[in-house]
Amino acid sequence: MDIDLNDFSPRTDLALEARELAGGANAQAIPGVESESYNDAGIRITKIDITTEEGARAIGKVPGHYITLEVPALRNKDSDLQDRVATKFAKEFAAFLEKLGIGPNAKVLVIGLGNWNVTPDALGPLVVENIMVTRHYFELMPDQVSPGYRPVSAVAPGVLGTTGIESSEIVQGIVEKSRPDLVIAIDALASRSLDRVNTTIQIADTGIHPGSGIGNKRKGITKQILGIPVVAIGVPTVVYASTIINSAFDLMHKHFEQQKGNTTQILGLLDNLQENERLQLVREVLNPLGHDLLVTPKEIDQFIEDIANIIASGLNSALHEAISTDNVAAYTH
Amino acid sequence: MDIDLNDFSPRTDLALEARELAGGANAQAIPGVESESYNDAGIRITKIDITTEEGARAIGKVPGHYITLEVPALRNKDSDLQDRVATKFAKEFAAFLEKLGIGPNAKVLVIGLGNWNVTPDALGPLVVENIMVTRHYFELMPDQVSPGYRPVSAVAPGVLGTTGIESSEIVQGIVEKSRPDLVIAIDALASRSLDRVNTTIQIADTGIHPGSGIGNKRKGITKQILGIPVVAIGVPTVVYASTIINSAFDLMHKHFEQQKGNTTQILGLLDNLQENERLQLVREVLNPLGHDLLVTPKEIDQFIEDIANIIASGLNSALHEAISTDNVAAYTH
Amino acid sequence: MDIDLNDFSPRTDLALEARELAGGANAQAIPGVESESYNDAGIRITKIDITTEEGARAIGKVPGHYITLEVPALRNKDSDLQDRVATKFAKEFAAFLEKLGIGPNAKVLVIGLGNWNVTPDALGPLVVENIMVTRHYFELMPDQVSPGYRPVSAVAPGVLGTTGIESSEIVQGIVEKSRPDLVIAIDALASRSLDRVNTTIQIADTGIHPGSGIGNKRKGITKQILGIPVVAIGVPTVVYASTIINSAFDLMHKHFEQQKGNTTQILGLLDNLQENERLQLVREVLNPLGHDLLVTPKEIDQFIEDIANIIASGLNSALHEAISTDNVAAYTH
Amino acid sequence: MDIDLNDFSPRTDLALEARELAGGANAQAIPGVESESYNDAGIRITKIDITTEEGARAIGKVPGHYITLEVPALRNKDSDLQDRVATKFAKEFAAFLEKLGIGPNAKVLVIGLGNWNVTPDALGPLVVENIMVTRHYFELMPDQVSPGYRPVSAVAPGVLGTTGIESSEIVQGIVEKSRPDLVIAIDALASRSLDRVNTTIQIADTGIHPGSGIGNKRKGITKQILGIPVVAIGVPTVVYASTIINSAFDLMHKHFEQQKGNTTQILGLLDNLQENERLQLVREVLNPLGHDLLVTPKEIDQFIEDIANIIASGLNSALHEAISTDNVAAYTH
Repeated sequence: MDIDLNDFSPRTDLALEARELAGGANAQAIPGVESESYNDAGIRITKIDITTEEGARAIGKVPGHYITLEVPALRNKDSDLQDRVATKFAKEFAAFLEKLGIGPNAKVLVIGLGNWNVTPDALGPLVVENIMVTRHYFELMPDQVSPGYRPVSAVAPGVLGTTGIESSEIVQGIVEKSRPDLVIAIDALASRSLDRVNTTIQIADTGIHPGSGIGNKRKGITKQILGIPVVAIGVPTVVYASTIINSAFDLMHKHFEQQKGNTTQILGLLDNLQENERLQLVREVLNPLGHDLLVTPKEIDQFIEDIANIIASGLNSALHEAISTDNVAAYTH
Repeated sequence: MDIDLNDFSPRTDLALEARELAGGANAQAIPGVESESYNDAGIRITKIDITTEEGARAIGKVPGHYITLEVPALRNKDSDLQDRVATKFAKEFAAFLEKLGIGPNAKVLVIGLGNWNVTPDALGPLVVENIMVTRHYFELMPDQVSPGYRPVSAVAPGVLGTTGIESSEIVQGIVEKSRPDLVIAIDALASRSLDRVNTTIQIADTGIHPGSGIGNKRKGITKQILGIPVVAIGVPTVVYASTIINSAFDLMHKHFEQQKGNTTQILGLLDNLQENERLQLVREVLNPLGHDLLVTPKEIDQFIEDIANIIASGLNSALHEAISTDNVAAYTH
Repeated sequence: MDIDLNDFSPRTDLALEARELAGGANAQAIPGVESESYNDAGIRITKIDITTEEGARAIGKVPGHYITLEVPALRNKDSDLQDRVATKFAKEFAAFLEKLGIGPNAKVLVIGLGNWNVTPDALGPLVVENIMVTRHYFELMPDQVSPGYRPVSAVAPGVLGTTGIESSEIVQGIVEKSRPDLVIAIDALASRSLDRVNTTIQIADTGIHPGSGIGNKRKGITKQILGIPVVAIGVPTVVYASTIINSAFDLMHKHFEQQKGNTTQILGLLDNLQENERLQLVREVLNPLGHDLLVTPKEIDQFIEDIANIIASGLNSALHEAISTDNVAAYTH
Repeated sequence: MDIDLNDFSPRTDLALEARELAGGANAQAIPGVESESYNDAGIRITKIDITTEEGARAIGKVPGHYITLEVPALRNKDSDLQDRVATKFAKEFAAFLEKLGIGPNAKVLVIGLGNWNVTPDALGPLVVENIMVTRHYFELMPDQVSPGYRPVSAVAPGVLGTTGIESSEIVQGIVEKSRPDLVIAIDALASRSLDRVNTTIQIADTGIHPGSGIGNKRKGITKQILGIPVVAIGVPTVVYASTIINSAFDLMHKHFEQQKGNTTQILGLLDNLQENERLQLVREVLNPLGHDLLVTPKEIDQFIEDIANIIASGLNSALHEAISTDNVAAYTH
């Protein structure tokens, strides 16, 4: 993420959180932002469509279609649940591609953004490692490829700090040479809320924009730049210490309200501040002490491996008809 | 760490923080707790001696000698500073052994506690990997060992969850067979304060006690159990989300006090609570949401590798006279 | 492996190869050595019992029971075959334990010998990482453990060069503290034949003897030393360059014999040498050039991961009745 | 390497070995092939210039300039020697660039060919990880870059089997977007001789050609394709089992000749065969048994890390004037 010290926005890459911030409980009422949610056995699916520029401004996200899968129990290392999430993700992803008019033979390039050597930023490279790659068979012996597969390639382009080249430029170069019909870009995100970290998957048809994701990105990976659709898949893996604190103030306020009724001066001087003023204050207080770090749960190694497997399994099933959602987990390691 | 859901203590493994909590600014006044501090070019050294049971109860740490090196700038990836910290650590550690009456030929077993596969808990195994091991030369060809070395062995015993055996028991078994004169136990710790994470090293002659460190430890690694002195080296690598929030309340309170004078109701209802009551409240509010995780900075992979190298370099120099503090970094990789 | 420069033995850790060397085609005829073989869908099982000291001397292996599974096709990365081998291994291993009189509730300690950082020597640690460990549940909450499990613990004790302590001593210490009824020791072996590398698994009730395995071992891990049975599981992962060459001479000789009849002077001067003389000659020729290395196939990373998973899956199934051979692969990662 | 089953060539990627094979002792006599050698304290440097197509055909390598550093003692883990080799390599590499007319400000893209997950093929990615990357500073804040540096970028493009895209195409795409003046391509090679594995570095101005290196490459990375010079750096990390055996026949033959004079029938029927006929025979004999693998020394993990550090250190010093050959090792980890 490009860290802008004058940026006192809520610092979320999730449309879901941006809408909550903008709309509160009655979020449906934001013009140009449509959404629906449902639960399916422990998985909460929310679809948000930002249909107008007005809606985009209101919640601070570019227009497009967003799907979020929230699975709080993912932290419990339940392999049955993981299989169910992979299957659900595969189904939602396949439907998402269909809605975008992307057919079953479209050639796909999967891009794993992020840095191998920084665990919470390694989601993209980890997914790429488990993608079932087939493009070279179509190139080298097209008549021998079994039906039910499409050409899929997969690259982890590294990050600016370790390559010296914008990953956007590397992706452009690879797209021009390998000519896919669709780019799927996987990236680790920042969330507002510690409990969404490693438990939430977002799919969006908006591509990757500068300032989203947790690595250093200055140029986007978008349809406008690449000339082909870009579907982004993101998982929040980190959260700013300051947003943890700020969210805690909210929770405390609500807690006291429920318990004691809406008295004045629940949190004293803090009650008089706007959300953004309060967040600015938290950062002013924390920054001199070096407090305002991006943090991640202690168990990040296991979490990120689990969710990378879920996404890779889901993509392998969604992209290749021959891989059913029953055997979806068999192709990753 | 053994997580006790009824434990509303401040959750710090650092004597330094425990003393701050107990004594505030005038910490020197706690009976049975002596301390002194000084700065040396960006490194702050604090020595705390807990000399009585009364002092131990007052700050919640067992009696003994504690040395803390605080180096806030360690986060900046400055390799010159890292070398200086390794040299300083070596010097303090050598003096610490001397004060304990442990001579230059004492046989040493270095124990790296923690879990390879959980990055913030991997400090111990990472240090062990870079220890210059010599015991086998003394056993197999004692007359061919150059002067200036002593017998050093090093083991990473794993954690209960992956071995099924208490690391305390494994260490006891190894001590009984290999007969060292001293055990040095390295462990990752939990801190109260995010800015001490990965920037602070604690040395103590108290051994490792149940409930310290971030792994699962039910039995101690102490002189009482092993029959030989145990020096513990710890680095905080994680912090509870709840203590981040609680510390933020403190900082906010002080911030408003300074700016606006000591008015009533700075933080509303929170002002009326004792520290421990407030922390309990924070946890009650956070726990249902799964918020109260142990968190670690996003850059933990690099941080932990750097500080493991500092400790291993420092130990190699402090334990082997032939390795001077000038070439201290040359023996690690 | 302890490398003895005056050792011109055939350098194999496999009883199967030792018997071949001693007995050639009519191996059955060696007194005190009984064996039988059969094939099961691509897996060749050979059982060798060395029943007398005479037999032991004849083939250079200690008396005991040996089972070998040879699966040449394991190199083809066929996951169905891998599952079948795991299931077959589990069945043979369970029967082996039963024959030794080790019951379903016997407490088991799995020891993974070898060095994490040397890929062809990492078999033991890799297996240990995937063992389903249960001992701590039996210790901490014995009444809550489901039926069908037994107490299993697992430790990778490291190697002499990185710990400074004989792994035999570490194992003794752990056995004395944790009191298992049986030790299962996993180790990487050296083979005579490149085609057995990573395709063969040996089970033996003889324990681990000095000079077997590819690491540095000076002391054994045996019933005599530990006081409890020790079952060894080994997989050849390396072969000496000199034995590759020597085996090639044999193959060439046989090739010419078949093609041209038993003429004199097929391989000139080499024909006049005994096997051991010829091997000595090969080493004399190669050694000055530093040729006589232990080598391993280029694909060792993948091979060793696959075979470690097979062994871990098989052991989990063989040791816990609740884990059937149908779901044997589900407990490893 | 593209494995051609009808390819009975000597399978070496080293010009040095190709010339030996073609010319024997009096190699200087091959028309169109010039060479000179000298020793420098344990490092043997050989420069071979293939100046004509005739010379190229004679030794089976494309025309160009080749420099080889042979350091047999590199296997001994001597860190002083490693530093000397890095310094020597830096010097030779800088002179090589100068001779090619590539100036100190030329923009450089370093390409690390090969596969992270196959240790003997991981040389390229490991070097890239330790390259001092600066291009982004020149792009983002050109006026703040200290003198003595040039724009350097570095990418590991993966291998066809894991990306589905020829690495040649990926490199082309990146070159077109990032516009370097020079590509330096690092690759693991196959050697004829086990004693050159991990002890030899080859520099060549010929680029990377199909069939060289140990990965799967079907398209070249050459000046012709990229439009800019390509300097290749290669280290042999593997050798075919069949070439080990074939070389052993040669050594045996010479050994007997020296000892017993040039008698007839030293190696019987083998003496009557041409080198290529004999190699074909060795493969015929070995192949049915799956013997003819590419093999690598057991200690490959350590060897490849050491030599990757030497190359990265050398390149950092050769490419950035501000990094002297004295501090050459300080920039890698």
